[in-house]
Amino acid sequence: MRMYDLILKKKQGKELNTEEINWMIKEFTEGRIPDYQMSAMTMAICFQGMDKRETFDLTMAMRDSGDVLDLSRIDGIKVDKHSTGGVGDKVSLVLTPIVASLGVPVAKMSGRGLGHTGGTIDKLESFSGFSTEISEEKFIDSVNTIGIAIAGQTANLAPADKKLYALRDVTATVDQMSLIASSIMSKKLASGADAIVLDVKTGNGAFMQKEEDAIALAKAMVDIGNRAGKQTVAVITDMDEPLGNAVGNALEIKEVIDALHGDGPEDLMEVVYALGTQMLLLAKRAEDEEIARNLITESIQERKALKKFAEFIENQGGNREEILHPDMLPKARYVIPVLAEEEGCIERILAQDIGIACMTLGGGRENKESTIDHGVGIILTKKISDTVKKGETLALIHANSKEKAVLASGLVKNAYRIAKEPAKKAPMVKCIIRE
Amino acid sequence: MRMYDLILKKKQGKELNTEEINWMIKEFTEGRIPDYQMSAMTMAICFQGMDKRETFDLTMAMRDSGDVLDLSRIDGIKVDKHSTGGVGDKVSLVLTPIVASLGVPVAKMSGRGLGHTGGTIDKLESFSGFSTEISEEKFIDSVNTIGIAIAGQTANLAPADKKLYALRDVTATVDQMSLIASSIMSKKLASGADAIVLDVKTGNGAFMQKEEDAIALAKAMVDIGNRAGKQTVAVITDMDEPLGNAVGNALEIKEVIDALHGDGPEDLMEVVYALGTQMLLLAKRAEDEEIARNLITESIQERKALKKFAEFIENQGGNREEILHPDMLPKARYVIPVLAEEEGCIERILAQDIGIACMTLGGGRENKESTIDHGVGIILTKKISDTVKKGETLALIHANSKEKAVLASGLVKNAYRIAKEPAKKAPMVKCIIRE
Repeated sequence: MRMYDLILKKKQGKELNTEEINWMIKEFTEGRIPDYQMSAMTMAICFQGMDKRETFDLTMAMRDSGDVLDLSRIDGIKVDKHSTGGVGDKVSLVLTPIVASLGVPVAKMSGRGLGHTGGTIDKLESFSGFSTEISEEKFIDSVNTIGIAIAGQTANLAPADKKLYALRDVTATVDQMSLIASSIMSKKLASGADAIVLDVKTGNGAFMQKEEDAIALAKAMVDIGNRAGKQTVAVITDMDEPLGNAVGNALEIKEVIDALHGDGPEDLMEVVYALGTQMLLLAKRAEDEEIARNLITESIQERKALKKFAEFIENQGGNREEILHPDMLPKARYVIPVLAEEEGCIERILAQDIGIACMTLGGGRENKESTIDHGVGIILTKKISDTVKKGETLALIHANSKEKAVLASGLVKNAYRIAKEPAKKAPMVKCIIRE
Repeated sequence: MRMYDLILKKKQGKELNTEEINWMIKEFTEGRIPDYQMSAMTMAICFQGMDKRETFDLTMAMRDSGDVLDLSRIDGIKVDKHSTGGVGDKVSLVLTPIVASLGVPVAKMSGRGLGHTGGTIDKLESFSGFSTEISEEKFIDSVNTIGIAIAGQTANLAPADKKLYALRDVTATVDQMSLIASSIMSKKLASGADAIVLDVKTGNGAFMQKEEDAIALAKAMVDIGNRAGKQTVAVITDMDEPLGNAVGNALEIKEVIDALHGDGPEDLMEVVYALGTQMLLLAKRAEDEEIARNLITESIQERKALKKFAEFIENQGGNREEILHPDMLPKARYVIPVLAEEEGCIERILAQDIGIACMTLGGGRENKESTIDHGVGIILTKKISDTVKKGETLALIHANSKEKAVLASGLVKNAYRIAKEPAKKAPMVKCIIRE
């Protein structure tokens, strides 16, 4: 087999067969296909696409390029959850203790954020002593004893995807549906869950800005999951503004604690309920949506989820006192308001710009070597459809440097779009994709 | 400027501006843009194309990546000739002594063949002692004294094209019109001629099999030449069977000598006249086509071209006796006929297969390190529209090894398509492109 012939085939719009895709991914991962041939291939895929069978084959080949976790030592149906990412997205942190408190095992692999804001692990590291660097043994044991564990992604999970993504990232070939879907799903399938719930974001702050693109991506991923024998459901949710009010690691953790106390912001809770419902259904913990929703409400109201969260944090070295007393969490030195310069109604909050403001403050990573300042961030006191008077506070900047605060203030101010007419917030949950 | 942004721009179907193209070619040539980004770019170009201005800019950037010859020390209008290549194509060797004998200076850079058959230089090296490795000084002097010189391409002629072509060759991105046109024209323009005549082949033995593709390529190249201020004309000629009867280095040289004696095969001479006419017109040596054709006829009939050829061969170290006595040229040990297995009319002779047969005999290069056997080759005794009886000779294999002769015979036999009905030969000259 020659890579040249495969590139030509794809360039001409022909299908690659299973054997060809397996060979290509193996040879590429092991360094026998040079980057310049693979980048020509990914560009050809951007133009000619891949059909469902090819996309599935690519996913499986990438999944099998490294370790595939064996979670069979954990009883019950393991349901994984993945989000395509957005600013202020702390859904996993609210959701996982809820479902764990309801007896659904949570064995989750998470990543750090490389982007404007921290990832799930970065947020969790706001707790002093907390670590996701745990052995596979401890990971499995934790799920079997307390029902929940979150570990950092090991280096050898779908290494083909890692290598291919790095190449796509520098050759403008990231935004192809089959390549995105196979990249996400190869890692999810290597993580060993029995079923998968996907949160596919859409809106100005999402990777898939158009709803139709988000739906297409969701369909592609659901198809892959189902072909792989893992029941997969995708929920399309709104990312037209940051999710919840807090953006920044410890600030988001505080919002998570609020949510587990029953005081979560409405938009965040809508997404938590939508995804939680699907997880409970897939885990066969609830027979229908109503039952599932009631279970979630009960878990929050009776503080079961909050207790589970504390148990989880403590089990991985964190200090549970910080949950009972959130003001023990990292704090910023300065809190500076961003004031409205005109009156009106909030029409839009450009989520990406809020993310960049958070990174400017030190709350995200500019590169792999960056360290994260857990205390900084932004609290949005006004959100879409809120009315505002001139001079009223739009947001609060939590900063450890006055200079950075000034920079972030400017960014946050620019992120707000204030209209003269009343503006309506779009529904958080757009639709659910099951096949 | 970032290569990433340029790839994205082209992927989205946008134009690259002059500054961007210049930057890209300079950085790539000097090794600051990695191959994997450039191959993604060429693949994007395959799908999105380049307009005339972009194609011209790319050509000029590649021309300027190395030396540009200065032929101003040679008096008169220097007209270069280029062929897109075909099997049995010895047109340059007949044509250049003709125009030189008519006072048009010939200062030609030629390449070796890397393909089924030898290139112009390989064919010329059939003469013992002949060399194209001459200094620029000797090159210019020769043209000024005897009117003709042919030199091997120096390493530093359009090095960007060399590097880019090597990458396209392994990433299935060779067959894009703008990339082909700019590759050819960057070298032609670096060779320093005042005007250019292009022989663009079409038919089953040509790179551009379809006439419409050949015309599109011709138009693209003529446009580049004219934009660069060099009058450029393209002649679209037939390559549905090998040109002339001889394929193989010394065998083709003998056919050239025959042609200069006035005994050239009809199809070869038709192409020689068509291209020669255009060269004489561009060189302002003839006012119209009729005058040009008469000048060519006169040059051949009065043996002026033959004498010029001998002068040229001798001037570059060759033995002119071999022109007077062509049986002194390298000869193969065995001459084996290929016989017709059925009667009928020759409908097609797959030129590529004849080329492969010649390479099998040792007459072409399989890789850069291959040495060429100048004596071997194939004489086609039957060509398209000829009738043939069962057992009659189709071709003669000139071989230095019986085993290779058997292999070549099989290939040649398969290259012939014999029909029951009479077949007609297509006209050699399809059309002439001036703009």
